[in-house]
Amino acid sequence: MVTIKDIAARLGIAPSTVSKGLNDANDISPDLKKLVLDTAIEMGYVTKKMKKEVRKKLCIFIENMKYENPQDFGFDIILGFKQAAMRDNWDIHIVPMTPVLQMKEPYDRYMVRNGYHGGFIIGFALKDPWMKQLERTTIPTVLFDNYIKINPNVAYIGTDSFEGIDLAITHLTELGHTKIALLNGSPDSMITANRYEAYITSMQSHGLKVDENLIAYGYYVEESAKYHVSSLIINGATAILCGNDLLAVGVIRECERLGIRVPEDLSVIGFDNLPIASQITPGITTLNQNRIDLGRNSFAVLYWLIAKVPVSRSLLRPQFIVRESTAKASETHLKLDNLEICEVIQNN
Amino acid sequence: MVTIKDIAARLGIAPSTVSKGLNDANDISPDLKKLVLDTAIEMGYVTKKMKKEVRKKLCIFIENMKYENPQDFGFDIILGFKQAAMRDNWDIHIVPMTPVLQMKEPYDRYMVRNGYHGGFIIGFALKDPWMKQLERTTIPTVLFDNYIKINPNVAYIGTDSFEGIDLAITHLTELGHTKIALLNGSPDSMITANRYEAYITSMQSHGLKVDENLIAYGYYVEESAKYHVSSLIINGATAILCGNDLLAVGVIRECERLGIRVPEDLSVIGFDNLPIASQITPGITTLNQNRIDLGRNSFAVLYWLIAKVPVSRSLLRPQFIVRESTAKASETHLKLDNLEICEVIQNN
Repeated sequence: MVTIKDIAARLGIAPSTVSKGLNDANDISPDLKKLVLDTAIEMGYVTKKMKKEVRKKLCIFIENMKYENPQDFGFDIILGFKQAAMRDNWDIHIVPMTPVLQMKEPYDRYMVRNGYHGGFIIGFALKDPWMKQLERTTIPTVLFDNYIKINPNVAYIGTDSFEGIDLAITHLTELGHTKIALLNGSPDSMITANRYEAYITSMQSHGLKVDENLIAYGYYVEESAKYHVSSLIINGATAILCGNDLLAVGVIRECERLGIRVPEDLSVIGFDNLPIASQITPGITTLNQNRIDLGRNSFAVLYWLIAKVPVSRSLLRPQFIVRESTAKASETHLKLDNLEICEVIQNN
Repeated sequence: MVTIKDIAARLGIAPSTVSKGLNDANDISPDLKKLVLDTAIEMGYVTKKMKKEVRKKLCIFIENMKYENPQDFGFDIILGFKQAAMRDNWDIHIVPMTPVLQMKEPYDRYMVRNGYHGGFIIGFALKDPWMKQLERTTIPTVLFDNYIKINPNVAYIGTDSFEGIDLAITHLTELGHTKIALLNGSPDSMITANRYEAYITSMQSHGLKVDENLIAYGYYVEESAKYHVSSLIINGATAILCGNDLLAVGVIRECERLGIRVPEDLSVIGFDNLPIASQITPGITTLNQNRIDLGRNSFAVLYWLIAKVPVSRSLLRPQFIVRESTAKASETHLKLDNLEICEVIQNN
C-alpha cells in the first residue's frame, strides 16, 4: 500500500510537507498542494478523509483503446480525469465496454441503477448501440472524439484535427512535398471523417490536387499499415500522413522491409505522440495530443454539464513535434522497380 | 453600500444564513453557498476577506457591444464571468476598448504593465490592431466569438452557430418555407462569416437552392434592417433569418410600415434571445445564447489557459425558442404591388 513516505520520496520533499498537502494546510503553496494531491492520486494513495466521506460517483467507459499501461493512449486520459475529479472529491469507476454489453441494458438505466451522476465515454464506434441512445440521454455525458447533435446533456471533447492536419501539411509543403498521401484510421469513427475532411481542406488551401488514389484507411494497429504502403508509393506519394502513430510505425516497418529509406525516400507523419513515436528509429514527426490535459478538460466539461451549462464541444490544440521521419522531398528517389517486384511477391 | 441584510432580503432568507454563506460555514448546503456568493457578487457586496487579500487580476475588454444595462447583450456575459471568477478570488477590471486605444500600446505590454494575469476580449472586429497581435501573445486570453489559429495561449468561446442556424432552417422548412433569406450581421466579424457558412451548409443539407439575392448584411442595430426588407421580399423571400435579434426587430418594424404581416406574410427569426425578443409583438422566434453560462464558461477556459491547458475552442449549445414571428409558408400572400410602390418612394 502506498504511504506518505512513498509520495515524499517520489517528489523529493519531506513527509511532513506531503502531509500538509493532503490535509489542506495553509502554510504550503497552492501549487505544491495540487502537485501533492495529483501525485497521491496517481500513486493510488487514499486519505482518511476520502475513505470517510460518502462521495458522488462518475463512470468512465472505454472501448477500442488500450489504457492499462503508461504507453497506452488511454492511460493518461484516465489519469488526468481522475486527478481533476478526485481533487473535487468524486469517486471514479472504470468500466471496459463492448457492443454486446451495451445491448444488454440501455445507457440511462445502467447509469441510474448504478447511481452515476455522469459518464465519460472513450473510444466508442459510431455504430455502437449506446451512441444512438445518447441523442436523448438525460445523464450528463462527455464523449471523447465523438459528437452528438442538439442534446444539451452531451458534450464532445478532443483535439482539433483541422489545426493538426493543417500544421502537418504546411510542414510537408515547406519541405517541397506535393504528393502527400493520407493513411487514415478506422472508417467507422468520427475522428477519421474529421481528419479526412481536414486533409481535403488543407490540401486545397495549399493549392495541391487531391488524388483519391493517395487516400487509404487502416486501423489503430501497426499491422494495418503494411497493405497500403507500396500502393501509395507506386501512386506517387513522397510523404504519408497517418491518422495515428501506430500506423506511422507500421509504415516505417514496412518501408524497412521494402528497402525504402525514411525520411530520404519517404517522409512519414503520425498523430497522437505516443511514447513509441520518440522511441523508434527514425523518431516520428507527429502531432501531440496532451492526454493528461484532455482528461482534465473532460472532467471540467462534465462538471459544467452536471451544473446545466450546455457545453457542446471543447477542443484542445495539438502541438506539432518535428523529429527525424520527415525531410526534403527533393532528396527523394524511390526505386520503383524494387517496389513493383515486392508487389508481385506480395500478391503471390 | 450593499449590506448582508440587502442580500438576505433579495434571497428571502435570514441574514445569519447569508453570513454563513459568505464565511464558508459548513452547516449550509454547497448549492445555497454558491447562490449567496453569486448574489453578493451581482449586488456588488465586498466581504472583509475579499478586501484583505492581495488578489490576482483579470481584465475584460469590451468593444462594439452594449453591456451597462440588463437588457444589453454584454451585461450577463460579464456578470457570469465575474460570478465564476470572484468565487475563485480574482479581481476583475472592465475596460471599454476602441481601435484608437489599441493603437497606443501593444496588448502584451498593456497587460504586463497593469499586472493582469489574463484577458477576456468581447466584441472585437477582425481588423482591430490587437487581433493581429493575439497571434503571438504570451498572455492567457479568451476571445468571445473570435478565433486565433495555433497560439496555445488564446482560446475561442461562443455559441455553436452551425447548430443554431440549422435548427432555425429545419423549423422553417417544416413550416413549408423554401425561399429563406439571410439578413446577416456586420461583414467584418468572424461570427457573421460562420453564420453565412452555416446557412449555406444547412440550406444545401435541406435540399434548398442558395440564392445570392436572398443574402444581405446589416449591423448590430435595428435601423440597419430596413434597407433590405423590401428587396429580400421582392426577390421571393417568405422568411428572413436574421444574424441577431436587433435586426429581427428592425425587420418587424419595417414590415409594419410596409403593411406586411408577420408571421402571416413573412416569417422572421432572430439570434441571441435578447429581452426585446419576448417583449415585442409578435414575440420573436430566436436562438437563445445563455449569456450567464457564456460568461462562466469563459472564466473556466481562461483558468485552464493560465494553468497551461491549451484549450482551442469551447462552444455552448444554442436553444431554439419558438414564439409568434414564424408560421406556415402556405398562408403567405405578399402584396408585391404595394411593395414595389414603396420601393419607388424609397428610391426617390
